[in-house]
Amino acid sequence: MTAEPAQNPVDDDLIEELHAIVGQRLTTAPAVREEHGRDESYHAPRPPDVVVYATSTEEVSDIVKVCARRQVPVIPFGTGTSLEGHVAALKGGVCIDLMQMNEVLAVNVEDMDCTVQAGVTRKQLGEHLRDTGLFFAVDPGADASIGGMAATRASGTNAVRYGTMRETVLALTVVLADGRIIRTSRRARKSSAGYDLTRLFVGSEGTLGVITEVTLRLVGIPEAISVAVCAFPDLAAAVNASITTIQAGVPVARIEILDDKQMEAINKFSKLDYPEAPTLFFEFHGSEAGVVEQVETVEAIADDFGGSDFQWATKAEDRARLWQARHDAFYAAMALRPGSKGYATDVCVPISRLAECIVETRKDIEESKLLAPIVGHVGDGNFHLVMVLDPDDPDEMARAKALNERLVMRGLAMDGTCTGEHGVGYGKIDFLVAEHGEAVSVMRTIKTALDPLGIMNPGKIVRV
Amino acid sequence: MTAEPAQNPVDDDLIEELHAIVGQRLTTAPAVREEHGRDESYHAPRPPDVVVYATSTEEVSDIVKVCARRQVPVIPFGTGTSLEGHVAALKGGVCIDLMQMNEVLAVNVEDMDCTVQAGVTRKQLGEHLRDTGLFFAVDPGADASIGGMAATRASGTNAVRYGTMRETVLALTVVLADGRIIRTSRRARKSSAGYDLTRLFVGSEGTLGVITEVTLRLVGIPEAISVAVCAFPDLAAAVNASITTIQAGVPVARIEILDDKQMEAINKFSKLDYPEAPTLFFEFHGSEAGVVEQVETVEAIADDFGGSDFQWATKAEDRARLWQARHDAFYAAMALRPGSKGYATDVCVPISRLAECIVETRKDIEESKLLAPIVGHVGDGNFHLVMVLDPDDPDEMARAKALNERLVMRGLAMDGTCTGEHGVGYGKIDFLVAEHGEAVSVMRTIKTALDPLGIMNPGKIVRV
Repeated sequence: MTAEPAQNPVDDDLIEELHAIVGQRLTTAPAVREEHGRDESYHAPRPPDVVVYATSTEEVSDIVKVCARRQVPVIPFGTGTSLEGHVAALKGGVCIDLMQMNEVLAVNVEDMDCTVQAGVTRKQLGEHLRDTGLFFAVDPGADASIGGMAATRASGTNAVRYGTMRETVLALTVVLADGRIIRTSRRARKSSAGYDLTRLFVGSEGTLGVITEVTLRLVGIPEAISVAVCAFPDLAAAVNASITTIQAGVPVARIEILDDKQMEAINKFSKLDYPEAPTLFFEFHGSEAGVVEQVETVEAIADDFGGSDFQWATKAEDRARLWQARHDAFYAAMALRPGSKGYATDVCVPISRLAECIVETRKDIEESKLLAPIVGHVGDGNFHLVMVLDPDDPDEMARAKALNERLVMRGLAMDGTCTGEHGVGYGKIDFLVAEHGEAVSVMRTIKTALDPLGIMNPGKIVRV
Repeated sequence: MTAEPAQNPVDDDLIEELHAIVGQRLTTAPAVREEHGRDESYHAPRPPDVVVYATSTEEVSDIVKVCARRQVPVIPFGTGTSLEGHVAALKGGVCIDLMQMNEVLAVNVEDMDCTVQAGVTRKQLGEHLRDTGLFFAVDPGADASIGGMAATRASGTNAVRYGTMRETVLALTVVLADGRIIRTSRRARKSSAGYDLTRLFVGSEGTLGVITEVTLRLVGIPEAISVAVCAFPDLAAAVNASITTIQAGVPVARIEILDDKQMEAINKFSKLDYPEAPTLFFEFHGSEAGVVEQVETVEAIADDFGGSDFQWATKAEDRARLWQARHDAFYAAMALRPGSKGYATDVCVPISRLAECIVETRKDIEESKLLAPIVGHVGDGNFHLVMVLDPDDPDEMARAKALNERLVMRGLAMDGTCTGEHGVGYGKIDFLVAEHGEAVSVMRTIKTALDPLGIMNPGKIVRV
């Protein structure tokens, strides 16, 4: 392959050129830079040299053109809720903060789609859609920006029913590495018109271009929604109950596992009193009759696997409390040990191997002596350990890395992936070769072709 | 851009090298070559210089390596049921017929997926899955090869419920333009591990590599299936009834429109006696109670739009007869005029614009004096005219091209696509620029990067 292109530092001339584009929406203040080089994970902050706040696609284009001419790195930034060092400015450069691009540009109720600027957050969009009868179905827990969710191919608790960002994004506006602006697709529901650029940029983590606008499929709010919680005698029973539910064709909207440690964490954090045992959280969407049918089927399955205390609820506030607790799982785990950082694993395997994968991993956790609650989107075969640790303790970090590596290799041996939804960033870059082999060279060819100067979020996904 | 790479002709030395790889599975017989340069459309056959029959991914790799060394075009071939000249050997070269690669390699019932060689056909897979409780849900009508369906991003009547090949393909084995073999993904249901190579090769029409194996999601056979047929007073009423059905959130498995002309054609071709009026064909999947609920909702909607004679059926033979008639629509249209060829349009628009698009197009058809029945996957906003014509009549061809161009421009103005499911081939190559603008240059960059010699199915999708 070609040698890695050399990046240049940010200098006063560049700052001046950026000022001419964004006026006062630019800062080199250390605290702001630090904040923009940090995500929610254990990765150490790597601040950019300058942060600019863009307000339009054209501004992003102008910024990228200047950076391209000077061969300076460009790092797009949303809410900073990623988990693999995606926003770390490994080679310094210009961070483009997109959070002022927060307009919902269009909602087409009849077509069940909408177009938003990249900085619109998930909750903001939810508020905006109130009273349309529609909702945006990808829910990673964090109130992430839609642009960031597209860039990391995010998913979360609803993916088992409604898909991930891969299935949900209809089209993107992207600023390319030379500043050109493209629209990847039309609003039609399907198309065979050439290479699928939408899917190429979804999950590209800012390494091929900057996503500035996103057109999303929306989903009709179901007539009836119900949730259920059920504790199981052991982890294998809980996993097997969820696998059976999927295989029985029950169209569950969410099916989440939490192990006893994670239940202890959310009880403490969210002041709840669930049994501290392996537990499944369910959500059912459908017609009134359809939801009752689903709940009855799942209750019978849970019963077969020794599930006890199957509680279901339909009231909006009960549902909201349940999912808030689930969404706070990461923070709840960290609260078990104040001052700690979270190191989240993200293996996803074919569901036939899921029980084996989780049970073996649980044994590894016990041997590692790490604090690592398990939580997972079991309907998709995806689960996380939230390893709660002190990143300044080298011994603990070494055990965490070893545990993750063992887990990834187990997942790959089961035809799974090292990352179901968090992405690669620089934290998983070495696993990508183990996972894809020769295909990584195709990714590298694409990266080099679309970003020949190597300025787009360098050091992420593939090494050039 | 770089100049278009020059291709070399097939000579005796190359034939000898190919013989060394495939033995006697090679022919230069004119009739066989002609058959391999022809699809089901009006496009004139463009025969390759030689046809080789591959039996393994490794053989395909060896063939491509030889062609790359000699800079000779490579055209993959399945069942030849494409519609835009995808298989035409515009620059001569080596046609790789994949139909002897027809093994179902694995069916993972628990994971609801399977892996097949590229030459397995849709019906063959259906037979193989009998008794597993699962089915392959993409149904373009033709008994196409799975490799070909992946290569054209095919869909069809079930897409409104189960998605297209874009959503259905989990992973591919691909032979690249230099003969290297890659696997694009693992079997996990979702992944954020790098660029989405699976989606890049789905729909790439052999221009980036040869697809040799496909891993597919399967779907559980529903407990209950029912079909319904309903005639409407005019085309707009039928389209609006279907749009209302989708917007009401009814999870229809299929919803197809046929205009009066198309109904006349299938009545004649399939010896049926449906009313020769604009008609919707529905299929409903679900639990027994769920299907009854869906049918009742749709019957009430149809009634609101003046639908008459709402007939529904649950018997397998009634359903099979209905869909066979629908699948034969293309052949039925051509049978209206013996000796003719079909020229199928494929516009897909956001469904809020569908009624307007179809009604205006119907007026154009009348003015054009062409015979062009309408049939469409209205749930997705996708519909076809089957223009029945004599490709040797220049006046008729000119009117057909003008009608299609007008329709495509109308579709694009509605934020639609020129092709919902047939693909680009060389028949729609000029529309791609109108549809994607600058984004076509990104496609060209990818093409040039992954196929620098320009040997992979040259002249399709993008001009280099």
